Amino acid sequence: MAICVTDCPRLSEQTLANFQQAEVATVHEAQGRCGLMHADMKPIYRPAAIAGNAVTCQVAPGDNWMIHVAVEQCQPGDVLVVTPTSPCSDGFFGDLLATSLKARGVKGLIINGGVRDIATLTEMGFPVWSKTVYAQGTVKETVASVNVPVVCAGALVNPGDLIVADDDGVVVVPRLQADAVFDKVSQRLANEASKRDRLAAGELGLDIYNMRERLAEKGLRYVSYHEQQS
Amino acid sequence: MAICVTDCPRLSEQTLANFQQAEVATVHEAQGRCGLMHADMKPIYRPAAIAGNAVTCQVAPGDNWMIHVAVEQCQPGDVLVVTPTSPCSDGFFGDLLATSLKARGVKGLIINGGVRDIATLTEMGFPVWSKTVYAQGTVKETVASVNVPVVCAGALVNPGDLIVADDDGVVVVPRLQADAVFDKVSQRLANEASKRDRLAAGELGLDIYNMRERLAEKGLRYVSYHEQQS
Amino acid sequence: MAICVTDCPRLSEQTLANFQQAEVATVHEAQGRCGLMHADMKPIYRPAAIAGNAVTCQVAPGDNWMIHVAVEQCQPGDVLVVTPTSPCSDGFFGDLLATSLKARGVKGLIINGGVRDIATLTEMGFPVWSKTVYAQGTVKETVASVNVPVVCAGALVNPGDLIVADDDGVVVVPRLQADAVFDKVSQRLANEASKRDRLAAGELGLDIYNMRERLAEKGLRYVSYHEQQS
Amino acid sequence: MAICVTDCPRLSEQTLANFQQAEVATVHEAQGRCGLMHADMKPIYRPAAIAGNAVTCQVAPGDNWMIHVAVEQCQPGDVLVVTPTSPCSDGFFGDLLATSLKARGVKGLIINGGVRDIATLTEMGFPVWSKTVYAQGTVKETVASVNVPVVCAGALVNPGDLIVADDDGVVVVPRLQADAVFDKVSQRLANEASKRDRLAAGELGLDIYNMRERLAEKGLRYVSYHEQQS
Amino acid sequence: MAICVTDCPRLSEQTLANFQQAEVATVHEAQGRCGLMHADMKPIYRPAAIAGNAVTCQVAPGDNWMIHVAVEQCQPGDVLVVTPTSPCSDGFFGDLLATSLKARGVKGLIINGGVRDIATLTEMGFPVWSKTVYAQGTVKETVASVNVPVVCAGALVNPGDLIVADDDGVVVVPRLQADAVFDKVSQRLANEASKRDRLAAGELGLDIYNMRERLAEKGLRYVSYHEQQS
Amino acid sequence: MAICVTDCPRLSEQTLANFQQAEVATVHEAQGRCGLMHADMKPIYRPAAIAGNAVTCQVAPGDNWMIHVAVEQCQPGDVLVVTPTSPCSDGFFGDLLATSLKARGVKGLIINGGVRDIATLTEMGFPVWSKTVYAQGTVKETVASVNVPVVCAGALVNPGDLIVADDDGVVVVPRLQADAVFDKVSQRLANEASKRDRLAAGELGLDIYNMRERLAEKGLRYVSYHEQQS
Repeated sequence: MAICVTDCPRLSEQTLANFQQAEVATVHEAQGRCGLMHADMKPIYRPAAIAGNAVTCQVAPGDNWMIHVAVEQCQPGDVLVVTPTSPCSDGFFGDLLATSLKARGVKGLIINGGVRDIATLTEMGFPVWSKTVYAQGTVKETVASVNVPVVCAGALVNPGDLIVADDDGVVVVPRLQADAVFDKVSQRLANEASKRDRLAAGELGLDIYNMRERLAEKGLRYVSYHEQQS
Repeated sequence: MAICVTDCPRLSEQTLANFQQAEVATVHEAQGRCGLMHADMKPIYRPAAIAGNAVTCQVAPGDNWMIHVAVEQCQPGDVLVVTPTSPCSDGFFGDLLATSLKARGVKGLIINGGVRDIATLTEMGFPVWSKTVYAQGTVKETVASVNVPVVCAGALVNPGDLIVADDDGVVVVPRLQADAVFDKVSQRLANEASKRDRLAAGELGLDIYNMRERLAEKGLRYVSYHEQQS
Repeated sequence: MAICVTDCPRLSEQTLANFQQAEVATVHEAQGRCGLMHADMKPIYRPAAIAGNAVTCQVAPGDNWMIHVAVEQCQPGDVLVVTPTSPCSDGFFGDLLATSLKARGVKGLIINGGVRDIATLTEMGFPVWSKTVYAQGTVKETVASVNVPVVCAGALVNPGDLIVADDDGVVVVPRLQADAVFDKVSQRLANEASKRDRLAAGELGLDIYNMRERLAEKGLRYVSYHEQQS
Repeated sequence: MAICVTDCPRLSEQTLANFQQAEVATVHEAQGRCGLMHADMKPIYRPAAIAGNAVTCQVAPGDNWMIHVAVEQCQPGDVLVVTPTSPCSDGFFGDLLATSLKARGVKGLIINGGVRDIATLTEMGFPVWSKTVYAQGTVKETVASVNVPVVCAGALVNPGDLIVADDDGVVVVPRLQADAVFDKVSQRLANEASKRDRLAAGELGLDIYNMRERLAEKGLRYVSYHEQQS
Repeated sequence: MAICVTDCPRLSEQTLANFQQAEVATVHEAQGRCGLMHADMKPIYRPAAIAGNAVTCQVAPGDNWMIHVAVEQCQPGDVLVVTPTSPCSDGFFGDLLATSLKARGVKGLIINGGVRDIATLTEMGFPVWSKTVYAQGTVKETVASVNVPVVCAGALVNPGDLIVADDDGVVVVPRLQADAVFDKVSQRLANEASKRDRLAAGELGLDIYNMRERLAEKGLRYVSYHEQQS
Repeated sequence: MAICVTDCPRLSEQTLANFQQAEVATVHEAQGRCGLMHADMKPIYRPAAIAGNAVTCQVAPGDNWMIHVAVEQCQPGDVLVVTPTSPCSDGFFGDLLATSLKARGVKGLIINGGVRDIATLTEMGFPVWSKTVYAQGTVKETVASVNVPVVCAGALVNPGDLIVADDDGVVVVPRLQADAVFDKVSQRLANEASKRDRLAAGELGLDIYNMRERLAEKGLRYVSYHEQQS
């Protein structure tokens, strides 16, 4: 029942290049506040930021065999997304696998499990977002599937989806929505830039966003400290 | 029922300057080992150390509206303390709000929730102590109170209390006790300095603190490895 | 019933020097994938890597008295291993104790609890692997034992065992097996070096390790994306 | 962007009746070991066992408004599946909502959040599987979607999918695969019944499953305690 | 610096009797959704429900000495609230202390730590809400304070405050607000009773609470499954 | 390298019968407050209490093969102790294995992992202490060792050690110390019985244990509420 799906579609180089500059928080907002992985998916070093095509890879708990299968499916511009079929924090991935992925032009690894050799990975400049760091080794006994839809750290990932990851975490954008999402990202960035200037100049969000009236309607009342004490 | 209390009292600039040099562990010891926030309140970058007046801000889970209200209450030398009314790890705070706080001279943020845009916050040098980092966005629908007493990460914080935060965590000092606590901090520092020199020279704590007799009374017995093996 | 065992055996300087270059993940593999402490034992700064003789120290929860007793038992090349007799995250250890250990030539601390003063410890270059960072102070009221066998973060540690710690975590090697384990470590390193070159050159693990046939036997089937969609 | 999808397809009454007798562990095995929700989804009382059609409901953190919208979409034989759009443990659901669901013939609730009034829910015999029990109240300010695909506690749920829940947890079966999965469930049950009799009679799994030879091949070696000690 | 405060004020017997019938969720709502302890405070058996005057007791981690001091301060109708000065899960409390408290008419224990002998406590009918169950014993070496304000499991408790606990958790009501809160509790119960009848009869919350218009304003849109598929 | 050790020594029937009446908390105290497993090892139903000889069994994460090997090593009066070689919560054990163990006279299971089929196990009256309940299935691909020393949930267990488990948790007593520990258990029980009577009659622990003088020496001071307020 285990399958490895080959020749999955990819995003255009232009799309990947666009998202390379985008932040996870912005992308997540732009697509309607969905697609984030859990907050415990952390980069092993900072700063780190990538955008690439998802190659998805299931592994059995305590078993990293399928990562070797997935490596062969990777192309330049890809991001490998590994998720155990039940929760496991073992160190499924280390510097040898990273060497192999780097040789293939892979941008980084997202793993809902553990990673090891992080000193070497940091030196190599190969970024990994993982649930934990753990030296625990794994076996190669059980097959699972590559490039099938997976739920990784709470987010649904289809092969070929866009993965954007930075110091804030990891977000998944469905492949066919990527360009539409980027349009919204661009609008947000333009909008945020003007807001940032006004805020830096001392204007208040309360005024920029016209919040005062609505706050009053909802019942917010101002009272001075001295009034309140007496 | 939601209120925003204005014109809360502040500590003197001298008091803040004094505590800027003090460490959280020392302050906590000096005031009788109380006032610490939970150990999961971590700085987003290290090293980081601040001391300032607490402006307290409740937020509803998944809703950062009240932070905008709190910003207006902040003055130079303040520290914003944000706590959700029930546990929530969303990214209530990011670089736009930080820009606004920085423009007002705020020293940093303490939030019993999530924060995002940490790469930018790190570049800006705006320190945040938070429970987690999470890109999850929030809404602006529900009011809550600003500058009321709150329990944040296990510690009671009244508006105007002193907040000291460094790489070890966050401690709260009641406003009216701040100067008395600083006297004890100073004594401890003097005392520790002389201890440090003696320890660095190879003297043992066992001797410096006269522990040997009391250990024996409590029943500690020394036995050599070879005795024990036979 | 509390004892402090003196004059425990140590490993040779050569053995310690050998392991100073070895990585935790490799050592753990070389000794049959055992001896790792839990994944929540993290270094307070990175990179950090040590190898030394274990001096073991029990402490009561909220009480760091016995660390002072253990300090006296430490020699150059040792690593102090502290574990509370029930789970506790208090800051049992700070810069004064580190000064004392450093004066005695101790390489670092492993503590299944909390540590504080980490800014100073980082400046001093005294590495600590701990479960958490917490400024909470402790008392000196209850005795426990030093240099007895302990379970620390899931691993059995006998006094005199070898402790190897790096950015990936902490592993324990039984004293009498240390040299035999190092032989296997050396073999693994040689083996890995050649693998790394081949992987960097673009060869696949699937081929280097002859995995294709066995994967097919286990039932892995390849299917192209377009086949699968139709 | 929030939608409520109406008139979702359901499984036949026969299919639901079939699965009412099936156990979560068996269903999960029968469909290839997938579809389980996280292990922290626990029933509020035991024993409890249901099988029904999923009505899916997103809620904002700290906001249970959409549950009221979802109630109207429920029919006899349904199971309501509620998931916050970011992690939240508030008590989104209590006895009033249960009264309403029970009046509509709903079999139970699956919620990746908190529930309250569990003493009353237990008396009513309305089963709930939740991440926690928490009295924390919620607001009604933010809309989200009903009957869209959701990831709930790590499992993808489409509206109309089959939900099976018992004391072991919760499993999701895609709607169109339900009958095929039930065939495999039946085969497993027949197979297990005969195994159970043989095991109860003292036969060993080692023999029933012919494991001895394969264990030896993998290198398992038997050694007596006395041999090993000497 | 440790003190034991004697002769704290209590609530009237009538007030306690009133709240004995009230549920934690209702009380929490009635007082403006505050005062709840964390969701990990669970009863050792169910059902259990108490209302009483708080006697507060700090303990050092791993040390239950002060509970003996607190026992003497307890009167009929009281609830003992114990909180360690730093997080600790040891079994601070068992059947001997429960025997003593029961002899004094104490209604139950709230402890932000561990409890043991729960089989006996269950037989005795002495209810305990705790963070965990753990057999770990404690010492009697360190003093702390009794009947001072404490933060217990996230809630501020002053001696003499009202504690209400049931299967959903624990809520604290400030002593001077107890009667005013009970008035609101009574109003809520009356209101809920009529709602319950209408919901049981099949009326929808959407209609009872007039939600449809406001949902539409917020942008909720209904779409049929078949429309959506095409 | 995987071995299965046969013919391990057992405790006498009298010793097991003695401990069958003893409580975990008492046994743990009697042997010097050590040997407890972590507090997250919970019984699947209550009340439950067993005492038996440990048969130890390692399993690979996600793989329950070795439990079948261990079953054959079990005799009447044994308790099976299963621990994964790295943390894993899968449902390694269910009703078929329980049927097999019950047929061999095994008293119960201790597993630092997950268990499933708990409704059936409860009906069968086969007690299990586990870290979690999870329906997740496992494979049979990887060998590990049976009846070797293991660390299970923080406690060192040698094959043949005494396991005592009840509603409070699980404690391990080294085989050769079991009878000496039981003598101390008996003394404690006699001592506790007389204490219980005095406490039930209203005497205070403060007086029974002569604590008042020592509390005063440590600095505890009594102050009345009214004094303190003024």
